Amino acid sequence: MQDRYLGEQRRYDDDDDRVWNCGAWFEYILVVVVSSILLIAASVLTIFWTIYYRKGFNMDDPKLQFNLHPVLMIGGYITLSGFSILLYRICRCCSHLIVKLCHTFFHACSIPCIVIGFMAVWDSHNQQQIPNFYSLHSWLGMITMGLFALQFVLGFFSFLILLCCENATYKFRSTMVPIHASFGVATFMLAIATAVTGLTQKAHFELGENYSQTVEEGIIMNSIGVILTGLGIIIPFAVRRSNSPANCKVYVTERI
Amino acid sequence: MQDRYLGEQRRYDDDDDRVWNCGAWFEYILVVVVSSILLIAASVLTIFWTIYYRKGFNMDDPKLQFNLHPVLMIGGYITLSGFSILLYRICRCCSHLIVKLCHTFFHACSIPCIVIGFMAVWDSHNQQQIPNFYSLHSWLGMITMGLFALQFVLGFFSFLILLCCENATYKFRSTMVPIHASFGVATFMLAIATAVTGLTQKAHFELGENYSQTVEEGIIMNSIGVILTGLGIIIPFAVRRSNSPANCKVYVTERI
Repeated sequence: MQDRYLGEQRRYDDDDDRVWNCGAWFEYILVVVVSSILLIAASVLTIFWTIYYRKGFNMDDPKLQFNLHPVLMIGGYITLSGFSILLYRICRCCSHLIVKLCHTFFHACSIPCIVIGFMAVWDSHNQQQIPNFYSLHSWLGMITMGLFALQFVLGFFSFLILLCCENATYKFRSTMVPIHASFGVATFMLAIATAVTGLTQKAHFELGENYSQTVEEGIIMNSIGVILTGLGIIIPFAVRRSNSPANCKVYVTERI
Repeated sequence: MQDRYLGEQRRYDDDDDRVWNCGAWFEYILVVVVSSILLIAASVLTIFWTIYYRKGFNMDDPKLQFNLHPVLMIGGYITLSGFSILLYRICRCCSHLIVKLCHTFFHACSIPCIVIGFMAVWDSHNQQQIPNFYSLHSWLGMITMGLFALQFVLGFFSFLILLCCENATYKFRSTMVPIHASFGVATFMLAIATAVTGLTQKAHFELGENYSQTVEEGIIMNSIGVILTGLGIIIPFAVRRSNSPANCKVYVTERI
């Protein structure tokens, strides 16, 4: 048991001692910078779109109350989740426990975004007597929220609470790592699939025939969709690439 | 060089000798069976939807000509690509070269599906004087097709043509593996994001107000979207899990 524990320790600490070549550094910086720019761009562009084209927020007007939904879901949940996943790539010199705590904190911050974002559209629909849960967007949204909740509870239990008896729970935690990592990335991709169906739906509802005339607002909405899809490519790529040198086959998500 | 070559050989062939425990077998069968069922279900349900609800195919009627688009893109491209990726998980006892050739063959078969599927919608839109390339669906579709073409050419060159001088190209091929695998999964996810935006768009165009009344066709279309999203979860999970025992950290996609 002691040997295995030492083995685990060695795997954690070795990375910092390894020498990176120019290519690995270039890729690291490129991935981190591009991901961060895309995450911030998605957030900023969604806020800009809702304020400039959709007349901002007002809780007394159900149409303007709806605008909280895309801002909190994209600018809140997706951006925070993206940074939370990306932390495993960014923090290559920090203690692993600190990275885990920050990962949990970022995800915890996205919980109020999801709850208020969901309540905003639910209440707005009910006030306007628009039915709920009929569209593919809403179905995907429900699955995403369910998976997120499951991932949060299981992740919190497995990787923070069970850390109290570190050695005894090593095997269970090591089994959970690839499952949590795979489903975490899957939840993020699901959130993006939900967002792009939501944007498509909103474009058809609000722009109607004008959408096919390539109006300015349509281009902004499509750009948000393309940025989100770009995030769906680069974030899983970022966490699946190792923090260790290019020729060493240790994956970030294998850390326990 | 000889050592490295032998090392590579050993890595290829070792897997078959390793003993799997019950859990690994159960997971292997579950993942392969569920993925295959979902891939076939997406295909069958799309064909059923277009024939039963959208009146099938007729090249002389632009509305019915359009129906080739979802069938060839979902039932053709996505299903073939899914099986092509899944081959790396299914074929744990075959020669690696045979898996690579089958992977190429499946992807090659999806090329005519993409080309005819694209031509069907292009021609149908032009005949009905509907503009092209204005929606998020079309933007995502263009990016997906571009990435697919790039992946196919680079993959064919790197992993089949360069295999002629196996030893000399080992380092280049080993560098290309995680890039090709990551972008391959990303292209598949992009295709799914494109498909769900397409289904949302089609539901709003064809069903209009009825969509919110939870009509039968709407449920079928949403189900196709949910199945596709399920594939977006299980296929990356399947190829990221190893074919070797649970405690061994060798990823399928690391094979060269």
